[in-house]
Amino acid sequence: MGIQLTILGCHSASPRTNAYPTAQYLKINERHILIDCGEGTQVLLRQQKVPFAKIKHIFISHLHGDHFFGLVGLISTFGLLDRRTELHVYGPKGIKEVITLQLKLSKSWTAFPLLFHELNSNESTLIFEDKKISVTTIPLNHRVYTNGFLFEEKTAQRKLNMSAIGPEPEIEICDYHNLKNGKDFVKQDGTILKNEELTLPPQDPKSYAFCSDTSYKPDIVPIIEGVHLLYHESTFLEDKKNLTERTKHSTAKEAGKIAKLANVKQLILGHYSSRYSDITAFQKEAQTEFDNVELAESGKVFVV
Amino acid sequence: MGIQLTILGCHSASPRTNAYPTAQYLKINERHILIDCGEGTQVLLRQQKVPFAKIKHIFISHLHGDHFFGLVGLISTFGLLDRRTELHVYGPKGIKEVITLQLKLSKSWTAFPLLFHELNSNESTLIFEDKKISVTTIPLNHRVYTNGFLFEEKTAQRKLNMSAIGPEPEIEICDYHNLKNGKDFVKQDGTILKNEELTLPPQDPKSYAFCSDTSYKPDIVPIIEGVHLLYHESTFLEDKKNLTERTKHSTAKEAGKIAKLANVKQLILGHYSSRYSDITAFQKEAQTEFDNVELAESGKVFVV
Repeated sequence: MGIQLTILGCHSASPRTNAYPTAQYLKINERHILIDCGEGTQVLLRQQKVPFAKIKHIFISHLHGDHFFGLVGLISTFGLLDRRTELHVYGPKGIKEVITLQLKLSKSWTAFPLLFHELNSNESTLIFEDKKISVTTIPLNHRVYTNGFLFEEKTAQRKLNMSAIGPEPEIEICDYHNLKNGKDFVKQDGTILKNEELTLPPQDPKSYAFCSDTSYKPDIVPIIEGVHLLYHESTFLEDKKNLTERTKHSTAKEAGKIAKLANVKQLILGHYSSRYSDITAFQKEAQTEFDNVELAESGKVFVV
Repeated sequence: MGIQLTILGCHSASPRTNAYPTAQYLKINERHILIDCGEGTQVLLRQQKVPFAKIKHIFISHLHGDHFFGLVGLISTFGLLDRRTELHVYGPKGIKEVITLQLKLSKSWTAFPLLFHELNSNESTLIFEDKKISVTTIPLNHRVYTNGFLFEEKTAQRKLNMSAIGPEPEIEICDYHNLKNGKDFVKQDGTILKNEELTLPPQDPKSYAFCSDTSYKPDIVPIIEGVHLLYHESTFLEDKKNLTERTKHSTAKEAGKIAKLANVKQLILGHYSSRYSDITAFQKEAQTEFDNVELAESGKVFVV
């Protein structure tokens, strides 16, 4: 159980020396996920010693270059590394065509199953689910079709309360599975031992919401309500608020407002415009709305 | 006049920390050229402080990712930097479709003229020429359609021999243009002063041949005969010669053979496989065939 989020790149627009475009590696409840994939992401994955091969799901928010120009290179590298396990790519309609065209031109078909899940709904939609996690889209408002993603752990099994189980000789190891799943224990004489007496409640499932790129959009608040970790873009400070309408980006203050409205536990800012050399100003501005604000930086790890 | 070649990336396959795929910046006779454009090239251009905006011609050898996955990002960055001057891209058929599809999907049309020159001939062909330089393809033998490129300076104007011109009061500054272009000077009394007496021969035009990726192909020797600088790929050493047939790459020894057969002035090796940690072995192996061998390394500059 738990979330470990590694920021790979967190700046807007072009990759520059020491300023990489958006990419994040998320470990959530034993699932390994890549979120967005700007140019150079595969090098950043290597720098952060991320176990490449374990990534089975890639979620792409939108088809601006700073969020997906590194994808075809990463897929090609998976091929060169002789990957065999399947890879699922979720992203806007068009992503399949552009990746497969490049693989075709380079005659580099992958030996592993490469499965595209193209998105085109404007409603929040459950797009992936297994026994460990679920992933739901967060429709955003940007210059091209864009989704954020809500990653949620599934409620875990109950934990065995060994100090209560110990004195009951009839309970054997093979019964633990049923206990963890919430079943009561029936003794030979018909006595019922209630599950709550033998187990402890599971850990709270953790959640992470990734919201980039978007203009200020309070519609998303019900979707991300109460998440443990919210990444919200803050391309500008309020001094450039006039640019947010045309570019469909947010200010740090607006990100803080969303965090406050959604009552999240922690806000992470990122997608800084290259106009700003000192990113601490983003933190200060967002803190006028919401206290617990952290700055995304390449290599920084957030653990819940 | 003269050549200045900056190696940006020179390794094969995937970009890694401190090992970047092929890209070279060539300044030849006042022309600024990019040759190949692996992922991350725009960051390497910045690191080497190359004047981005001056690049007007990009030559792409083939459509394997390690030679062109950085192109769309570079073009997008030119757009973000508000470039207005035209950009010419030369590369295999298909390059236009893949780049324009990505620009379309990201709704990022360039404000500058972006002109594609798609290549599909298997004969050596003059593909660019102006008053300063010419560029000719070098058909190579690889797993996909691939060209090397021969860059040649045009013969420069003759140089004024001021110690011969000085004593001739009838020669004025406005006559210099004709003298540089090889014309004789006719005095008022009809006496002819031969051009060779008034001028000196121009510098030898310099030439650079870029040959990557290819298996050993002595057919290219007549095209690159006598060039000042030859870059020839050497993906493997002879210990892996068995791999060259399937992968259509060369060994360092084979690169040395080509340099010797073509009687070039200097050979630069590159496109090293990640199998080899010590690249000096490439130099030693090529030197069994040809003396003047240098190793491509990121940031290294070759001047002729």
